Amino acid sequence: MNWKAVLKILGKIFIAEAAMMLLPMIFASTYGEDTYWGFIIPMIVLIVMGVPTYFIKAEGEEMKIHAKEGFAIVAFAWLAMSAVGALPYVITKAIPHYVDALFETISGFTTTGASIIPTDTTLGLLTIEDLPKSILFWRSFTNWIGGMGVLVFVLAVLPKENSGIIHAFRAEATGPSVGKLTSKMGRTARILYAIYIALSLIEMVLLLIGGMPFFDALTTAIANAGTGGFSVKNASIGAYGSLYVEIVITIFMFLFSVNFNLYYLILTGHVLKAVKSEEAIGFVLMVILAVFAIATNLCFSTVKLVTASGELLPNTFGNAMRYSAFQVLSLSSTTGFSSIDYNSWPALSQSILLFMMVVGGMAGSTAGGMKMSRFIILIKSTAADLRRMVHPREIVTVKFEGEAVKQDTIDNVRLYFVTWAAILIFAGLVISVEGYGDFLTNFSASLSCISNIGPGFNAVGPAANFAGYSYFSKVVLSLEMLFGRLEIFPLMVLFSPATYNK
Amino acid sequence: MNWKAVLKILGKIFIAEAAMMLLPMIFASTYGEDTYWGFIIPMIVLIVMGVPTYFIKAEGEEMKIHAKEGFAIVAFAWLAMSAVGALPYVITKAIPHYVDALFETISGFTTTGASIIPTDTTLGLLTIEDLPKSILFWRSFTNWIGGMGVLVFVLAVLPKENSGIIHAFRAEATGPSVGKLTSKMGRTARILYAIYIALSLIEMVLLLIGGMPFFDALTTAIANAGTGGFSVKNASIGAYGSLYVEIVITIFMFLFSVNFNLYYLILTGHVLKAVKSEEAIGFVLMVILAVFAIATNLCFSTVKLVTASGELLPNTFGNAMRYSAFQVLSLSSTTGFSSIDYNSWPALSQSILLFMMVVGGMAGSTAGGMKMSRFIILIKSTAADLRRMVHPREIVTVKFEGEAVKQDTIDNVRLYFVTWAAILIFAGLVISVEGYGDFLTNFSASLSCISNIGPGFNAVGPAANFAGYSYFSKVVLSLEMLFGRLEIFPLMVLFSPATYNK
Repeated sequence: MNWKAVLKILGKIFIAEAAMMLLPMIFASTYGEDTYWGFIIPMIVLIVMGVPTYFIKAEGEEMKIHAKEGFAIVAFAWLAMSAVGALPYVITKAIPHYVDALFETISGFTTTGASIIPTDTTLGLLTIEDLPKSILFWRSFTNWIGGMGVLVFVLAVLPKENSGIIHAFRAEATGPSVGKLTSKMGRTARILYAIYIALSLIEMVLLLIGGMPFFDALTTAIANAGTGGFSVKNASIGAYGSLYVEIVITIFMFLFSVNFNLYYLILTGHVLKAVKSEEAIGFVLMVILAVFAIATNLCFSTVKLVTASGELLPNTFGNAMRYSAFQVLSLSSTTGFSSIDYNSWPALSQSILLFMMVVGGMAGSTAGGMKMSRFIILIKSTAADLRRMVHPREIVTVKFEGEAVKQDTIDNVRLYFVTWAAILIFAGLVISVEGYGDFLTNFSASLSCISNIGPGFNAVGPAANFAGYSYFSKVVLSLEMLFGRLEIFPLMVLFSPATYNK
Repeated sequence: MNWKAVLKILGKIFIAEAAMMLLPMIFASTYGEDTYWGFIIPMIVLIVMGVPTYFIKAEGEEMKIHAKEGFAIVAFAWLAMSAVGALPYVITKAIPHYVDALFETISGFTTTGASIIPTDTTLGLLTIEDLPKSILFWRSFTNWIGGMGVLVFVLAVLPKENSGIIHAFRAEATGPSVGKLTSKMGRTARILYAIYIALSLIEMVLLLIGGMPFFDALTTAIANAGTGGFSVKNASIGAYGSLYVEIVITIFMFLFSVNFNLYYLILTGHVLKAVKSEEAIGFVLMVILAVFAIATNLCFSTVKLVTASGELLPNTFGNAMRYSAFQVLSLSSTTGFSSIDYNSWPALSQSILLFMMVVGGMAGSTAGGMKMSRFIILIKSTAADLRRMVHPREIVTVKFEGEAVKQDTIDNVRLYFVTWAAILIFAGLVISVEGYGDFLTNFSASLSCISNIGPGFNAVGPAANFAGYSYFSKVVLSLEMLFGRLEIFPLMVLFSPATYNK
């Protein structure tokens, strides 16, 4: 392991995080909040951690970044960023206990959006709406930072970087492989960020047009962009009770589940190629099917559609479509905003939602989950193997996006699926030990965390939160969120003794 | 496809089933029951289906049985056996509707033990205890026949068989591969059946010693031997309220989850080799861990241990161990007997039970589930691949039972796991459409059927049954039981158009 190269990149990431902490201070100043030290102290910590790495002398072989170093950079960067990113909550006493603050920060950066902050006053604690605006901004901002990834940011602002950093970039990006976009990394990173910022701004403007206050529109847009789903309202998006707002957010939840390479293709005039994307077609079909299936299921069921304000809506197809579309996109994009409590929905609707939570969005987007491309490769390669079994002499090839899929990629996707399922089950069992929550609560919590969604079912449903778990379980779930966001493999380096041996 | 060869073997299987139907007629005669025609009519059907195949003329290439023919024989045999095996229920009006009877028969042959017969009189229908003894015997006997498999039986009684039949034998046997036992098939089949009969008889004698009536001891022993779990009592094994009976059954549920090759090794003096079996060690460790974990969980929880007779037992470690051991072995052996209702147990205990339901017993046993050997290969190959990812230059081999595992075997196990999971999820979604049962009911029903267990959770829990599902869902679950028992691949032949094209 070339530790010097790893440390030098880590240092840049720490400085970048310190710079990002300037933004919430603007809100502290605007709203006259007494939260400055909450950001200044972690900034000092980050600078102390980051600046010395600039003086590390290394050259030649020592500066080489291979796959292993790439994994290590990403793993350590995300852990350290979260450890320091939790300090503002603790220092400002918004979240008094460090483990809770760490959970909230990892949940933010991994774009999970699971929260331990109460949504009502029954516990006698501060609810989301009681927190200072600067803290709420930081909370939503972690969603935005984590969505695109911090390495992309470093690449975007520091164009002449070590060429091996592509390994770290790959380790942070989502999906089975990074597309051809990445041949010129610095430029790629700037394009990605430009698309990301533009989409976030458009959403904010559209929310403002709908009458949402500026602070809410900004925080909602950035939390949506990262598909994180932290909201500044106790009742999440349901609090606005506005069909327009829900439609805008539903559309943007879809847009941020789309592979950003497709936007690049569209911008460079290759619209047809983008529209033909197998992953996009698969995702759109899945979402449309799910929306109609759930809407029909809701219409014909006895379930009561009760809004966040307590209003009982009739089970018309229109109302069913409104809530079905929002929830399907919220969970399949892994954003986790909620507009209604789906805990009372029929088993079919709940099962479909759980299925969407497994699949997630597209590769190369800010969404979590297994990713649609992996899902398609998994299905196609399985169908091909079954065909080979019945017709041993036939030559069967697996094609995806018009090209033959290499056996390596198939093996990797299967390995990912098995490891993913193992972590999901293991974490679900471990958090069951303390005896909080029933089966569906614990396993939907585990699924929600590894897929970086936010809400689950029952006691971690859309109207509830993760506050009830013990600190031990919160640490387990935090690790699971990191495994989900970094797609498992980078973190394996941390658990391998060989990483630390010479 | 060499249809003539397939038909000739199928004919023998039909005659074998007709012969098996003589046994319940003995009980009809003994107990003076009016159920003769219930067995005579299907016997006639089977003879009419079977005898003509003896006159089919085929030789040379036409009589060759390849993997494809092996799959087809097994798939058609199990479907046809079930279709005719359901007739006794319908003709005797024990189960009036044919789909219900088919469900019960497939559940029997696949050793699932899921039942649609009510366990109480609330529906105004016949309960299990109201049925004629000859019908109850047939019901338990289907468990016994299906456990070892009907092809093994045909091989055992007809030693000079077509050598290609090993493909059908493989297709019917459980687990990733059939051991070396199979080099002399006729002899192997007879040894397997001898062990099977001997163990069943020993259990019956031990149950008789415990004071169980002869009919109950016989039916319980044969249902246990096939790890089917059909009981002649409404409250299953809980009805006997006897610790001795529960201990005997717990031990035999373990014994029938063991790979029969190990018994052969022990009988031929290779005790050490049998004891060193990695699969056996893995299974024993998993069971011991699960029993202690659940017992501890029950002790420290507020759950009430209420017996089938309504008695409330104190949460002592002894009582907890009694019910934990029984339920763990019942579900991990995929038998599905119950001694208490575990629906109210804490989430940790329930999650562990669900996990055992996934893994199941050992390959080459009568148990269902994924099989311990597949599970070990899945875990080991995943660990090896993760190691290869972190240390690309290292040579990592996967060993199982002291030998390097071929990549083919690993690929097959992964293919099995993915297909298995896909069927589990798909069936769970499809049976959710009708709106019966909550999420845990539907998915535990789906899991219980693909793993050939019997009970699930909530509305299909140990004190309930599958009667509440629509006929459509019952057909889906029946198919799933067949997929589980035949380990998926043979049935694929049925769904491949190429099977029927020339």
